[in-house]
Amino acid sequence: MTKPLTGILPVAPTPFHADGRVDEEGMRRVLDCLIDQGVDAICILANYSEQFVLSDAERETLMRISLEHVAGRVPVIVTISHFYTGIVVERARAAKEMGAAMVMMMPPYHGAALKGDDAGIFEQFAAVNEVGIDVMVQDAPLSGVTLPVPLLAKMAKELEYVSYFKIECPFAADKLAALIEAGGDSILGPWDGEEAVTLLADLDAGATATMTSGLQCEHIRPIVTDYLAGDKDAALKQWGKCLPLINHENRQCGLRATKTVYMEGGVIGSDYVRHPLKPMSQRTKDRLLSLSRELDLIALKWGK
Amino acid sequence: MTKPLTGILPVAPTPFHADGRVDEEGMRRVLDCLIDQGVDAICILANYSEQFVLSDAERETLMRISLEHVAGRVPVIVTISHFYTGIVVERARAAKEMGAAMVMMMPPYHGAALKGDDAGIFEQFAAVNEVGIDVMVQDAPLSGVTLPVPLLAKMAKELEYVSYFKIECPFAADKLAALIEAGGDSILGPWDGEEAVTLLADLDAGATATMTSGLQCEHIRPIVTDYLAGDKDAALKQWGKCLPLINHENRQCGLRATKTVYMEGGVIGSDYVRHPLKPMSQRTKDRLLSLSRELDLIALKWGK
Repeated sequence: MTKPLTGILPVAPTPFHADGRVDEEGMRRVLDCLIDQGVDAICILANYSEQFVLSDAERETLMRISLEHVAGRVPVIVTISHFYTGIVVERARAAKEMGAAMVMMMPPYHGAALKGDDAGIFEQFAAVNEVGIDVMVQDAPLSGVTLPVPLLAKMAKELEYVSYFKIECPFAADKLAALIEAGGDSILGPWDGEEAVTLLADLDAGATATMTSGLQCEHIRPIVTDYLAGDKDAALKQWGKCLPLINHENRQCGLRATKTVYMEGGVIGSDYVRHPLKPMSQRTKDRLLSLSRELDLIALKWGK
Repeated sequence: MTKPLTGILPVAPTPFHADGRVDEEGMRRVLDCLIDQGVDAICILANYSEQFVLSDAERETLMRISLEHVAGRVPVIVTISHFYTGIVVERARAAKEMGAAMVMMMPPYHGAALKGDDAGIFEQFAAVNEVGIDVMVQDAPLSGVTLPVPLLAKMAKELEYVSYFKIECPFAADKLAALIEAGGDSILGPWDGEEAVTLLADLDAGATATMTSGLQCEHIRPIVTDYLAGDKDAALKQWGKCLPLINHENRQCGLRATKTVYMEGGVIGSDYVRHPLKPMSQRTKDRLLSLSRELDLIALKWGK
């Protein structure tokens, strides 16, 4: 990319039919709805996209459909995480060939116990670096891997394409600040994540973009743009407006939130999540939809 | 199966060429070498088989090759674990159709944080039970999931095909004893695992089989058969003979042990493990081979 990506870069949910099959037409509609929310890029196959319930073949199909359908309207970031370095590299190559702008990856992990050590982590990112596509490092608790700031800074400095970092671990803002301090100009994208639940503090720490869900991008984007333009008061005010729904999504709904709102708004036909994930309770859903209606979300009207 | 499986049921390693590709001919030789060690069954695609570095397509190929090549000479147990219940069921169906005798599965897990709860775990096993193939529950720390004895006993009692349990968690023997107590006749196979490093205590607790690696099956099998035939002294003596190599494998080598011995014995051409797994140190390897030579292992001579 010629200049660093900033703004709002939501994760697209993976829609399923009510019988559990991937809803390919729904996937296209999800992408269109996100673009209509004015997003700066879209990330696919992330954890919020239920990447852990997809077969290899489904991942490939979803990547192809998404890149073909977005067709350059916004940059697309493709998640490629896997424990085995060979599979990660192969996924990076496929994403690059199909026109992805960036790949996102967690460090190698499997289950509760299998992790790469610092050398193994560096080697895996170095192998993907050779592919020649921008890489975003996802620092998320799901991996169970601790990524020390010196390791992240070393990757940013020594690996040409590894310049973006989405920090989602506890006390993310302090880690972002430390990473910016340690990595300097090598850090092109210190990013906020986790449904933007730490966005204000992350912007204070120097974040330049947020990877949210696709729930309320039109409302969250101005928080980032106003803040980066120097209007912190406007950002703070907008943050206060968005936070109840962000909080409810992050703490009560998780990845089910976008699906349920998109179904309500006619974007997709079902908010099915794959077992052993569970549907949300009616109480949680009622609150989600009521908070969404108060914000008059684009997604709630999109398909109507 | 007409009568419960007992004895020694080792996990087959997955051989790779030195460039990382799956070695299909090597896989066939591994299976032949195991059969020549007098095993009672063979398990494929387990953690010791590096299942976490395989693509879906490689899993399918390895399952097909293995079942075709074993061709009923011994029962084959196929590992089918996945977080998504739909994929687990699909893998169970494929294994049954190709002639597997049993499937092995961990409860649903992904990374450090995603787990099914007790209801979700039961539901996943219940879904596989519908397929109509014997199921072995693998209770291993890698999943990060705690499987309470009452849940295991409930599965054994309520799910016709869920009757085998390989317990590899800390204090495995006490858990085996508690499971046998709680599950009664519904427990057809209380099994030992983890390279047999807890075998003697597990036999004391009531274990009827061990799922080892393929390193020294001809030496470990008599421990089980003598013990079950009532000759505990012979079992104890043999246990003392096998334990140094078991200990070295379990604590120092892990899944690399069998590959290295098999390469040394001409069974396979390479002991390659996929990144970020690492080759073992020369010191560890020297001790492994020296302990193996003392036992005059079949695997060390098999291809020569």
